[in-house]
Amino acid sequence: FLNSKKGVGWLIPKCLNALLRGVSQVVLANNPLAGLVILIALFWSDVFVGLAATVAATTAILTAVLMRQDPSSIEAGLTTYNAVLVGTVTSSLWTPLYGEAVGITVWTFIIIGAALSVFVTSAISTILSSLKIPLPALTLPFNVVTILIFICLMPMNHEHFQHNGNASEPVALRLRGHEPLVISSNLLHEHHLQHISRQIRSPEDDGVNDNEPASESSSEALNWGRILSGIVLSAGQVYGVNNELGSVLIYIGIMIYSPILFMMSVFGAILGTSTGLFFTEAPYTDIYNGIWGYNGLLSASSVGGFFIVLTCHSFFNAMVNVIFTVLIQQALSLALGSLHLPVFTFPFVLSTLLFLSVATSGNQLPRVQNITFPE
Amino acid sequence: FLNSKKGVGWLIPKCLNALLRGVSQVVLANNPLAGLVILIALFWSDVFVGLAATVAATTAILTAVLMRQDPSSIEAGLTTYNAVLVGTVTSSLWTPLYGEAVGITVWTFIIIGAALSVFVTSAISTILSSLKIPLPALTLPFNVVTILIFICLMPMNHEHFQHNGNASEPVALRLRGHEPLVISSNLLHEHHLQHISRQIRSPEDDGVNDNEPASESSSEALNWGRILSGIVLSAGQVYGVNNELGSVLIYIGIMIYSPILFMMSVFGAILGTSTGLFFTEAPYTDIYNGIWGYNGLLSASSVGGFFIVLTCHSFFNAMVNVIFTVLIQQALSLALGSLHLPVFTFPFVLSTLLFLSVATSGNQLPRVQNITFPE
Amino acid sequence: FLNSKKGVGWLIPKCLNALLRGVSQVVLANNPLAGLVILIALFWSDVFVGLAATVAATTAILTAVLMRQDPSSIEAGLTTYNAVLVGTVTSSLWTPLYGEAVGITVWTFIIIGAALSVFVTSAISTILSSLKIPLPALTLPFNVVTILIFICLMPMNHEHFQHNGNASEPVALRLRGHEPLVISSNLLHEHHLQHISRQIRSPEDDGVNDNEPASESSSEALNWGRILSGIVLSAGQVYGVNNELGSVLIYIGIMIYSPILFMMSVFGAILGTSTGLFFTEAPYTDIYNGIWGYNGLLSASSVGGFFIVLTCHSFFNAMVNVIFTVLIQQALSLALGSLHLPVFTFPFVLSTLLFLSVATSGNQLPRVQNITFPE
Repeated sequence: FLNSKKGVGWLIPKCLNALLRGVSQVVLANNPLAGLVILIALFWSDVFVGLAATVAATTAILTAVLMRQDPSSIEAGLTTYNAVLVGTVTSSLWTPLYGEAVGITVWTFIIIGAALSVFVTSAISTILSSLKIPLPALTLPFNVVTILIFICLMPMNHEHFQHNGNASEPVALRLRGHEPLVISSNLLHEHHLQHISRQIRSPEDDGVNDNEPASESSSEALNWGRILSGIVLSAGQVYGVNNELGSVLIYIGIMIYSPILFMMSVFGAILGTSTGLFFTEAPYTDIYNGIWGYNGLLSASSVGGFFIVLTCHSFFNAMVNVIFTVLIQQALSLALGSLHLPVFTFPFVLSTLLFLSVATSGNQLPRVQNITFPE
Repeated sequence: FLNSKKGVGWLIPKCLNALLRGVSQVVLANNPLAGLVILIALFWSDVFVGLAATVAATTAILTAVLMRQDPSSIEAGLTTYNAVLVGTVTSSLWTPLYGEAVGITVWTFIIIGAALSVFVTSAISTILSSLKIPLPALTLPFNVVTILIFICLMPMNHEHFQHNGNASEPVALRLRGHEPLVISSNLLHEHHLQHISRQIRSPEDDGVNDNEPASESSSEALNWGRILSGIVLSAGQVYGVNNELGSVLIYIGIMIYSPILFMMSVFGAILGTSTGLFFTEAPYTDIYNGIWGYNGLLSASSVGGFFIVLTCHSFFNAMVNVIFTVLIQQALSLALGSLHLPVFTFPFVLSTLLFLSVATSGNQLPRVQNITFPE
Repeated sequence: FLNSKKGVGWLIPKCLNALLRGVSQVVLANNPLAGLVILIALFWSDVFVGLAATVAATTAILTAVLMRQDPSSIEAGLTTYNAVLVGTVTSSLWTPLYGEAVGITVWTFIIIGAALSVFVTSAISTILSSLKIPLPALTLPFNVVTILIFICLMPMNHEHFQHNGNASEPVALRLRGHEPLVISSNLLHEHHLQHISRQIRSPEDDGVNDNEPASESSSEALNWGRILSGIVLSAGQVYGVNNELGSVLIYIGIMIYSPILFMMSVFGAILGTSTGLFFTEAPYTDIYNGIWGYNGLLSASSVGGFFIVLTCHSFFNAMVNVIFTVLIQQALSLALGSLHLPVFTFPFVLSTLLFLSVATSGNQLPRVQNITFPE
């Protein structure tokens, strides 16, 4: 109802509204209250991540206003949700990935990245909507911008890499347990790297990790309680954070917006995690941290419920989408892991764009015409 | 004429019809008899490859029916030909590439892949047909699905890689001649790897390969008889098999459908193989095995005859397409070879999509309106 | 006015007109006089580069006529400018990159590449123009064709690579200063490689380079005069040449066509070089050689002035485009540098395609309807 109000007095609530909706759009919810709950979850998990989300979203709103973009999509948070992700993911993954504090350079890049994401979002949605079946941009702009930031900033801490070993031997073994990121110097170590790339999203667990592998590898037993916790953590991993209470809050945020979306998200997280089990070996750290669930969560909720009316048929479609997402994640984590890059939400984006095209092709699965509430 | 018949009694012949047409669609023929001849060729070359083709095609038909896809395209085999390729190529290349028997895991993935290929085919054809000039999906879905399968399953036999050498020395030299796939541990070995990536499509020839290189490298003489056999084998390599009688049967299958298509296929195989000679050095094993011909075969027959009316002008266009295909194959085999992946039919797909766009742009080359018989 | 003349007598001037316009289209100018000045600049910088431009452009014109392409776009040089770039960039970068003379093989490939570029240009412009917002092909065809040529020809001088070092130690250090291209054998050396990939565009400077690094690295001082020279050299780097007088002539060529375009080009080169400074460390050789300016130059002039009417708003848009271009360049130079490939003009193309989409999406930035003179 804020749309009806005019004048400068309403500028701050309007901005706040846009900011909170942007935060919630990441999990496909469009509701300021859901956004507030999620923002609290981010601050709870890590003050800096919450701060980064706020700064990035504000930058994006300012850029969008300066660029004179469509006011309705600014208010719906559609111009900001990619910026929010740029902020949260960069700030939360930087330290575990490269063993460096998030300094002024990284903060500058978060602001630049947030501003750029507005341009990229605008460009990508124009291109994708020009297809016969208009496709949404999803979080593709976030992926493009963040991978650029990560690649551009990586060489800055090259001394770190070069001091710690001469090139011709596997540095990984020597550094193990001392550094959040262990570096493998050889292509043959790809499998190893993949293992690492799964770990890098789990900073908080590192202490545990160092002590447990020996015992867990030998027992090879799955800890079902921790798998459950992995499914819960999937919600947090969407924003790049790894905190159980935070994740529960995010699920509550989704439920505030729509119970159907919540249900599909949980299904997606469960199926994604289960499928991920197939590709994982003990110690299953990545499963327990929700790394295999967050892409599935997004894939399931977008195909089954958000963009397409939920029917028995589209539910089946959503589940196949989750499986395909996990396959892509496995392939990408091998490819990007060798470059010390996480997979971000690329698996979700690529798979879901394909399945949204499938869906509409047969006229069997009607697209939701007016995306407000899936109910 | 099966379209006119209704009822459950006709279900099995209809399925068989769809299956056989799907097999023949791979070489752009749409004819159940041609499909039968080709399926016999596959079974003759390798029982498991034939079986994989049948299983994959059946899975695809079932999935397509469950997904309520357009029945006419199911019957024309358009939903199944990518699944057929997923089956044949995975089953025939798996053992020579990774030195492992095709076990239950791989079979499971063939079935999953076949089912997924139906979704991917549907998605990609929708996207490509939404362009101003509708483009066909060709075998792009097969390439996407199979490369995912190969990447996902690769790490499973990592022990094989890790036991056989420590990372810092060139494993390639030590393993040579003992393993179907020799692994090079270093980027500098790229050229070497490319050489390997060419060999990996030639399992049956390995016995010969081990004995001959020395003599052949010294003589550097081209064996014209074996080049001819390479041109013949190109037809089999489309399906990933390496068998002369099988390849001749496939050519016969194409001829049953259309002599023009057969002629263009042969021209493409000849030109592709000749251009490939430029990039190859003794012992020319890959030339003799049809590795350089199969992409050319597909490129020539699709641009000259199948999608575009064959004229003097389009014949020239088709020949340039073949040369461009070979260039892409050389570039891709370097890139993918270093990841232990074959080039599949990516060169054909990428080049032909470009040349189909060229063709239509000038209105000089009319697209075949009603794709039934090129005559 | 040549369009009005008919007959064989006018064939040669028509061809010459098409050739010269093709040369000038590279920097977005469409004027035979500008083309003549630029062609003189190329010949002045390096006789072979000028020759390659002429040969490639002629090949492209002949191919286009044979393919019966639209005569008006042939005469405007739109079919030839990609071929011109294939010629100049291949001939000028080959020797510094791979330490080999430009022999018959490379010349053959320049001619084949020029012919292929006509097909690829036609295909890519058809595909891009079929989007809702028609996008121009820019220099994407050149990038595609040249990267294929470079990859295909690279393995030919593999002996060079293999004789100079055994795989397991960093060859880079031993070869340094003896070879134009130093090879790093290990992934950990990525940062190093990136440094090299920046150097490879600066052949003429190599003599200076070998002597100076020591002193410059220690002083760490920026030489502002040489930065200015880097901004000037950016114009030459568009064509792959590194010559100050040549670059000044190219700027004059742009000014002949349009002062606005000239102004935007200079702004782009300045901003690109400044942003590039952020990613560079002493000895700043690449900054001084215009490596960071040429993509910015193209990005600025195409978004601000050529395709979009220059306003305060689009000027801002153009500047953001330049910054995004530099980010992409940094990321790509890491990725392609490790394969011994330069970034060509990929950063410009990718970034500008995105920003042209942005621009049109809001209807805020009108596209220039009739591209003749930006004034």
